[in-house]
Amino acid sequence: MCISVAVSGASGYAGGEVLRLLVNHPEVTIGAITAHSNAGQRLGELQPHLIPLADRVLEETTAEVLSGHDVVFLALPHGASGEIAAQLPENTLVIDAGADHRLTSEQSWEKFYGTDYAGHWPYGLPELPGQREMLRGTRRIAVPGCYPTSNLLALSPGFSAGLLETSDVVIVAASGTSGAGKSLKPHLLGSEVMGSMSPYGVGGVHRHTPEIEQGLTWAAGEPVQVSFTPTLAPMARGILTTATARLRTGVSATSVRQAWEQAYADEAFVHVLPEGQWPATAMVVGSNHAVMQLAVDEHAQRVIVSCAIDNLTKGTGGGAIQSMNIALGLEESRGLTQTGVSP
Amino acid sequence: MCISVAVSGASGYAGGEVLRLLVNHPEVTIGAITAHSNAGQRLGELQPHLIPLADRVLEETTAEVLSGHDVVFLALPHGASGEIAAQLPENTLVIDAGADHRLTSEQSWEKFYGTDYAGHWPYGLPELPGQREMLRGTRRIAVPGCYPTSNLLALSPGFSAGLLETSDVVIVAASGTSGAGKSLKPHLLGSEVMGSMSPYGVGGVHRHTPEIEQGLTWAAGEPVQVSFTPTLAPMARGILTTATARLRTGVSATSVRQAWEQAYADEAFVHVLPEGQWPATAMVVGSNHAVMQLAVDEHAQRVIVSCAIDNLTKGTGGGAIQSMNIALGLEESRGLTQTGVSP
Amino acid sequence: MCISVAVSGASGYAGGEVLRLLVNHPEVTIGAITAHSNAGQRLGELQPHLIPLADRVLEETTAEVLSGHDVVFLALPHGASGEIAAQLPENTLVIDAGADHRLTSEQSWEKFYGTDYAGHWPYGLPELPGQREMLRGTRRIAVPGCYPTSNLLALSPGFSAGLLETSDVVIVAASGTSGAGKSLKPHLLGSEVMGSMSPYGVGGVHRHTPEIEQGLTWAAGEPVQVSFTPTLAPMARGILTTATARLRTGVSATSVRQAWEQAYADEAFVHVLPEGQWPATAMVVGSNHAVMQLAVDEHAQRVIVSCAIDNLTKGTGGGAIQSMNIALGLEESRGLTQTGVSP
Amino acid sequence: MCISVAVSGASGYAGGEVLRLLVNHPEVTIGAITAHSNAGQRLGELQPHLIPLADRVLEETTAEVLSGHDVVFLALPHGASGEIAAQLPENTLVIDAGADHRLTSEQSWEKFYGTDYAGHWPYGLPELPGQREMLRGTRRIAVPGCYPTSNLLALSPGFSAGLLETSDVVIVAASGTSGAGKSLKPHLLGSEVMGSMSPYGVGGVHRHTPEIEQGLTWAAGEPVQVSFTPTLAPMARGILTTATARLRTGVSATSVRQAWEQAYADEAFVHVLPEGQWPATAMVVGSNHAVMQLAVDEHAQRVIVSCAIDNLTKGTGGGAIQSMNIALGLEESRGLTQTGVSP
Repeated sequence: MCISVAVSGASGYAGGEVLRLLVNHPEVTIGAITAHSNAGQRLGELQPHLIPLADRVLEETTAEVLSGHDVVFLALPHGASGEIAAQLPENTLVIDAGADHRLTSEQSWEKFYGTDYAGHWPYGLPELPGQREMLRGTRRIAVPGCYPTSNLLALSPGFSAGLLETSDVVIVAASGTSGAGKSLKPHLLGSEVMGSMSPYGVGGVHRHTPEIEQGLTWAAGEPVQVSFTPTLAPMARGILTTATARLRTGVSATSVRQAWEQAYADEAFVHVLPEGQWPATAMVVGSNHAVMQLAVDEHAQRVIVSCAIDNLTKGTGGGAIQSMNIALGLEESRGLTQTGVSP
Repeated sequence: MCISVAVSGASGYAGGEVLRLLVNHPEVTIGAITAHSNAGQRLGELQPHLIPLADRVLEETTAEVLSGHDVVFLALPHGASGEIAAQLPENTLVIDAGADHRLTSEQSWEKFYGTDYAGHWPYGLPELPGQREMLRGTRRIAVPGCYPTSNLLALSPGFSAGLLETSDVVIVAASGTSGAGKSLKPHLLGSEVMGSMSPYGVGGVHRHTPEIEQGLTWAAGEPVQVSFTPTLAPMARGILTTATARLRTGVSATSVRQAWEQAYADEAFVHVLPEGQWPATAMVVGSNHAVMQLAVDEHAQRVIVSCAIDNLTKGTGGGAIQSMNIALGLEESRGLTQTGVSP
Repeated sequence: MCISVAVSGASGYAGGEVLRLLVNHPEVTIGAITAHSNAGQRLGELQPHLIPLADRVLEETTAEVLSGHDVVFLALPHGASGEIAAQLPENTLVIDAGADHRLTSEQSWEKFYGTDYAGHWPYGLPELPGQREMLRGTRRIAVPGCYPTSNLLALSPGFSAGLLETSDVVIVAASGTSGAGKSLKPHLLGSEVMGSMSPYGVGGVHRHTPEIEQGLTWAAGEPVQVSFTPTLAPMARGILTTATARLRTGVSATSVRQAWEQAYADEAFVHVLPEGQWPATAMVVGSNHAVMQLAVDEHAQRVIVSCAIDNLTKGTGGGAIQSMNIALGLEESRGLTQTGVSP
Repeated sequence: MCISVAVSGASGYAGGEVLRLLVNHPEVTIGAITAHSNAGQRLGELQPHLIPLADRVLEETTAEVLSGHDVVFLALPHGASGEIAAQLPENTLVIDAGADHRLTSEQSWEKFYGTDYAGHWPYGLPELPGQREMLRGTRRIAVPGCYPTSNLLALSPGFSAGLLETSDVVIVAASGTSGAGKSLKPHLLGSEVMGSMSPYGVGGVHRHTPEIEQGLTWAAGEPVQVSFTPTLAPMARGILTTATARLRTGVSATSVRQAWEQAYADEAFVHVLPEGQWPATAMVVGSNHAVMQLAVDEHAQRVIVSCAIDNLTKGTGGGAIQSMNIALGLEESRGLTQTGVSP
C-alpha cells in the first residue's frame, strides 16, 4: 500500500476502468483523480459503479495536480497527453492510455492523426516478443490501442515463427460500443446500437491500422501489410478479432498450432483454448485475459485466428496496470486476478 | 387473392417469416400451415406475433396436406425437403428454404452435408447475373442460404466485371442469433448471447462455404476460392458481411465503384449507398432490402465491401417470396414493400 | 392514392415512424417532409431505413410548407405544435403526435409542462369508450402519449365496468429507449443502456401521469388516482405495462375476465390473449397491435394487467394513422396490417 | 488460505458465480467442484470465464465428495439440497443457495413448492434487522432468493420504522435472464429475449412471494401482504425492483428518507444514493453492492423505492459469501471488494 497513483481523464471509460482495477490493487493508494470539463464534480455522479470512490471530487487535469505521485495514468484525448507528460518529473512512471506515444514512425503519426508527433515510448504489450524487457524499469509506457492489442496477440506468433506471408493479411474485428468512448454522437445512442452491426473506418483509414502493422512488422522482422476493418457490435464491452493470413508454402497445421501454443505457454493472461473450443467475448468481460483459437483452412491455405478480449480491460486499463506492474518490478498479475464476469 | 399457398415448418423462424410476409401479400391466400412435433397446436402459441393467424391450427407436414396448393414453401431441416418435394405435383411451385437443392456439385453436398444428394434447382437470388431468367416460370426454387445471399450480393459485381483476383477472397460475417433457428442449445440462451460475440464454423467448414464459392464462380466464370468465417452477434436479426478481395492489377477505384453501381442500378432491393454512408443491419430489419458500401484500400490493394441484410427476410423468407413473384409472373416486389423497422 | 399528407419532425423517431407506416398506406401520397435543424438534408442520411424516400429532401417546418395537404402530422417538441397548428387551415386534418393538445385541464398542463396551455383536441385512443365517436370527422387529433396508450388500454375496461377501486392504482412500465427520442444524453448511449434497467420520473412527476389519470377518470366516471413509475429497458422499442388495482368488494375473477374480453372483443388492434399466455413486447414490435393478459391475485385482492405495445407504432405513429383513418372515414386498419417483426 | 470450500452445482449460473468470487477470496482454498449430469467434464468447457479453474474436473455431487471441507456451497435445484445437507457433518458450514431452507412456514413451502418441507435455516440477508446476529457462528445458512434480496432491502427500513401500511404493498421487478438459470427453454433463447420484456408468475404465484412477505413481516412485526410481479428483461444480469407502499397517516417525506438512510448508514454493501441520483443495474453488475433511491409521491400517498442488485452476486453468490464471512468470523467484505463492471 505504498505506491501512490494519480488518474487523469477519470470521467471517461478508460479512466474509469483504470480506477475500477486500482481499487482492488493491493499495492496502490489512489491519489488525485482528475478530469477536464467535469472537474469539481463527485466521481459518484459520473462513475456510479465505483462505489468506494463515490465521494472523491474530480480535480483539474494539470501537471501540478498530477505531480508528486509515483504513477500517473493519462486517459486523455489524443494530442493532449504529449504536452502534459512533458511537464511531469522524469522519475514518475507515466502511463499513457491514449495514442500519442504508440507509433515509432513520425510519418505514420502525421498521416493518421494530423497533429504534432510526440515521440514514442516503450509499448505496453508485454506478450509481444521483446516488449516485456523494454518495460522493466521504464518510466514511460504507451498503452496499445484496444484493436492492436487483440489483433497483435492473434497474429504475432505466426509472424515471429516465420510461418505467414507478410502480405494479404486480413483482419475484421467487432468491438463493443465503449471503444468509442462517451462521446455524444447519434450513431452511439442505445436506440441505434441495439440490434445492429455496422462497419466504420473501412479501407485502411482506421487509426489503429499503422499500429497493427508496426507490431506485426516487429514480430516478422520485415514489413507486414494489413487490411483491417473494424465493426461496431451491440454490446458495451469486448473485441472479437478474426484475423487471417496466408501460410507460407509447406507450413503444416501442426507447426502452426505449436507456434501459438509455445508463444503463450508461460503467459498469465493469454490463452490458446483447447482444440474445439472457440472464444467468446463473454469469457473475458471485466478481466485482463485474452482467449484465442485458430484453424488452418487447407483449402484457402490460410490460418484463421479468433481472439477475444475486453477492450477496456486487457485492451486498455488492465493492460496498462499489467505494464505498470512490470515497470515497478511487481508481480505481473498483481491486482488483475478478477476473472471474466459471465454470464 | 387467388394464389393458394401452403407453408411447412411453420413453427420455426424461417417458416414464421414466410408467413409474416404472406399475411401482407395481396395476391395470396394462406392455406395449410404445417409442422412436425408441433402439429395440432394453435399457431398463436408458437408464433404469437402472427396475430391474424393466431387461431390457425398446425397440420402434419405431409405431401397429402401440402398438395392442392399453387405454392408450397418448405422450411424444413436439411435432408427433409428432398423427400417431400419428390411427392408434390410437378406443376406446384415448390420453394425450398432449406439447403437441399442449392448445390450443383454432388461432391460438395456430400462433403458438407453428408446425406444423399437431392439434385439442384434454380437458385433464388435474382440479382445474380442470369438467375432471374432461370426463375421465370420455374416450378422449383432453391432459396439461397442467408450468408450466401449477403456475401454473393457483396462480391458478385466485382467478379462479373472481371476486376477481382479469384484467390485470397476473405469474408467475415456477423449474424443475429435467429440464423441458428430455435434449437435449444446452451450457447444460444439469451444469458450467453447478450453482450457477447463469438465465431463458429471456422476454417472453411461452414456449410455455406461451397455455396458462396459456387455463386462467385458463376459470376467470375472461373473458380473462386474463399475463406469464410461466420460469427454470432448479440442481436436477433441481421447479417453484416465484410468481404474483401484483391484487385487485379491496374483496376482503378472508379471502375470498382462503377461496377457495383451498375450491377444494382435497376434492382428494387439491393442498394449501393451514397459515398460516405455505411450500412447497418438496423437499416433493413424486417425488410427485403440489402444495403452496401465499398472502399478501395490502395495500400492493401483490396476492395472491402460491407453488406447488410435481414437474414430472415432478404436472407430467407423475403428472398423466397421475391423468387415466387418472379416464377409466377407477378411484380417482383409484390408483398415486399415494408421498409426496415428502425430504430 | 388521393390523400396528400405532410409530416413534420421527420428527422426524429416519431416522425420517422409515421413515414414508415405511410409508405405502405394505400390511400396516401406523401407530400412535404419537414424538419428544423436538419432541413436541407436528404432523408436517407437521417432515416436510412426509409429506402423509398431516401432521396427526398427535408424542408423547413413552416405553416406555409405544411399547408395545402389534406393531412398534417406534427411530430414536434412539446410547446411547438400549438403555434403551428393555429396557422393551419381549419379543414386540414392536423394530427399532433406531441403533448400539446392532450390534457383537458389547463392546471395540469401548467403544472407538468410549464408552458402556455394550447387547449385540447379529440383524443386519439379509439379503444377508450366514447373516443372513437369523437374522432369521426374531426379535423384535429391529439395522439396519446406512449405510456398512456399502454396503461389506459390495460386498465380502462375494469374502470368502465365499475370493478376497481379508484385509489391505490399502481402502474410500473418499462419502455425501450426510443421513447426518449434521439436526444444526445449520456445515459442514452448504447454503452450505458445495454445490459441495464433504470427508473426515472419517479414519485408522480412524469408528465404522462396526469394524462393517465385523465383517461382512467373518463373510464371510471369519477376521479382515479395513480402511482406511475416508468423504467428504461435495454431495448430500442416496446412498452411493457404492469398495472394493478384493487378489486371492489365482491368482484369475482370471472367478471373481471369478462370485462376485459368484452371491451376488446371487436377491436382490431387490442387483444386479450388466451388464458395462460402472457404478453412480450417482441410480439408487437413494428405493429399497431396491443396484447394483454390479466390475473386476479385473490390474496392481495388485486387485478394485475400486463400489456405490451410498440411505443413508436401503437404508442405513436400507428395510433396516429389509426385515428387518421377514423377521422377520414377510411377502414380503421388501412395501412396498418403489418404484424410484429419477430424474433 | 486455510478455509477449504466445496462447491456443488458448479455447472450452473449460481455455482459458477460462487466460484468466480471464491477465486479472489484470500482466505479460501477451492476443494471439490461438483455437478450432476456434467460430472467428469473440465470446468473450462462449462464455465470458460473461470480461467484459473479451467482444468479442474467436475466430480459427482455426493455427500462423500463434499464432506471433509470447512464450507460446502449447495447450488442445486430445489428439493435436492435438503437431502444432501442432512448427510453433511454438523460442524461443516453448509450454505444453501437454493430455496429449500428459506421458508419458516411449512404450509407456504408446500403450497408454493409442492415437495416435502426440509425445515428452515438462518436467513442469509445480514442487512435485515436481527439477521446478522443469527448468522454469527452458524453452520447452516439459507441464501435468500434473488428477488427477495432486492425487494426486502428496498422496503424493510420503512416497515422496521413503522412508517408503512402493511397492506397494498406492490412490487414489480425486472430481472436479467440468468435468474432463470441455464435451462433450455424456448422463451430463454437469445432470439426471443433480446429486444423484449415480458412478465411471468403473475397474480401472486411466483415462489418468491411468500419469502418476500416473510421478510417484510419480520421487519414490520405484523403480517405484510404483497402483490409481486416479476418480469424478464433483455439483459443477462441484474434486478431492478420498483417497490411501493402506502404511507401511514401523518408520515413525512423527511422521516421516510431518514429511516432508509439510517438503516443502511453502516452497511458496506447497501447504499441509499444521494438525492436526485437513481439506481441502474449497470452500477452493480458483478459486485455485491445494492444501490437504491426513494421518492414520496404526496399525491398517491405512497413511497416508491427503486433498488438495483446483481441477481447472481448480491442476489446469490456474493450474498452467500458475505454470510459465510459472518458465520466464520471473517471481515464481512472479505473477497467481495470488486466494484461493478461498467459500462
